[in-house]
Amino acid sequence: MKLGRLNHIGVATPSIADSIVFYRDVMGATHIHAPFDLHDQGVKVCFVDTPTDSRGLGGMDGTQIELIEPLPGNTSIASFLEKNPNGGQHHLCYEVPDIHAAKAEFEAMGKRVLGEPRIGAHGTLIFFVHPKDMGGILTEIMETPKAH
Amino acid sequence: MKLGRLNHIGVATPSIADSIVFYRDVMGATHIHAPFDLHDQGVKVCFVDTPTDSRGLGGMDGTQIELIEPLPGNTSIASFLEKNPNGGQHHLCYEVPDIHAAKAEFEAMGKRVLGEPRIGAHGTLIFFVHPKDMGGILTEIMETPKAH
Repeated sequence: MKLGRLNHIGVATPSIADSIVFYRDVMGATHIHAPFDLHDQGVKVCFVDTPTDSRGLGGMDGTQIELIEPLPGNTSIASFLEKNPNGGQHHLCYEVPDIHAAKAEFEAMGKRVLGEPRIGAHGTLIFFVHPKDMGGILTEIMETPKAH
Repeated sequence: MKLGRLNHIGVATPSIADSIVFYRDVMGATHIHAPFDLHDQGVKVCFVDTPTDSRGLGGMDGTQIELIEPLPGNTSIASFLEKNPNGGQHHLCYEVPDIHAAKAEFEAMGKRVLGEPRIGAHGTLIFFVHPKDMGGILTEIMETPKAH
């Protein structure tokens, strides 16, 4: 496997509405997407774009912040928020060209892939790898969107 | 303030040597810098570069992974590793054009800036902001390197 683009950092929050205000007014984000529900994963998500380069001349294609709020019935994010009531860093997501090839490679290395590939927040297939096998980081692997 | 480039994600690890093997052999990183000690902050650090864009055509100027291992006598990272023995996500770092202006802005918003600006791992001035004021995320603010 070759290291892919760092697509986003998953950030859990008790309130996406409050986090949008924070990223807009405190951090100065100018490109905040509309939040939407990802019912399969029991979460509401919202992407915040970051500048591609240091001078802000290269567009807003930097690694995104993915705000994640649990929908009713969600247990994993709700449990994370019980331990971290203010929210916090939840996972990292790297892109790969082929999700099934990546899954086979992680499994061949003895890494615990959590479930079958499923559609993620960017509309392409994703899977997660167990943090205990990944230096303590819950790691999402996503197939690069074709139009990207 | 205007949101700056997401420079790096700080990742605590009990062993940079082991993490280098992980990022090289499991994640497929091809650009791993030489580790060095940052004595002022009591840490050894090592940067892992990620691809700028999805096709790997734009160079390796994506958000970096900053591996952080405590030096003897360090308490903050050591304490983080006691709670997270495998390591894990420790902080996010955004760039700003002027570190002193950024500090004044955070303070005017009532955010707890942790100490005075000091030289960070990229050789420019940095400060940290308290996670409880930042959606649960320990946030580093760094002045963009001039030559960048």
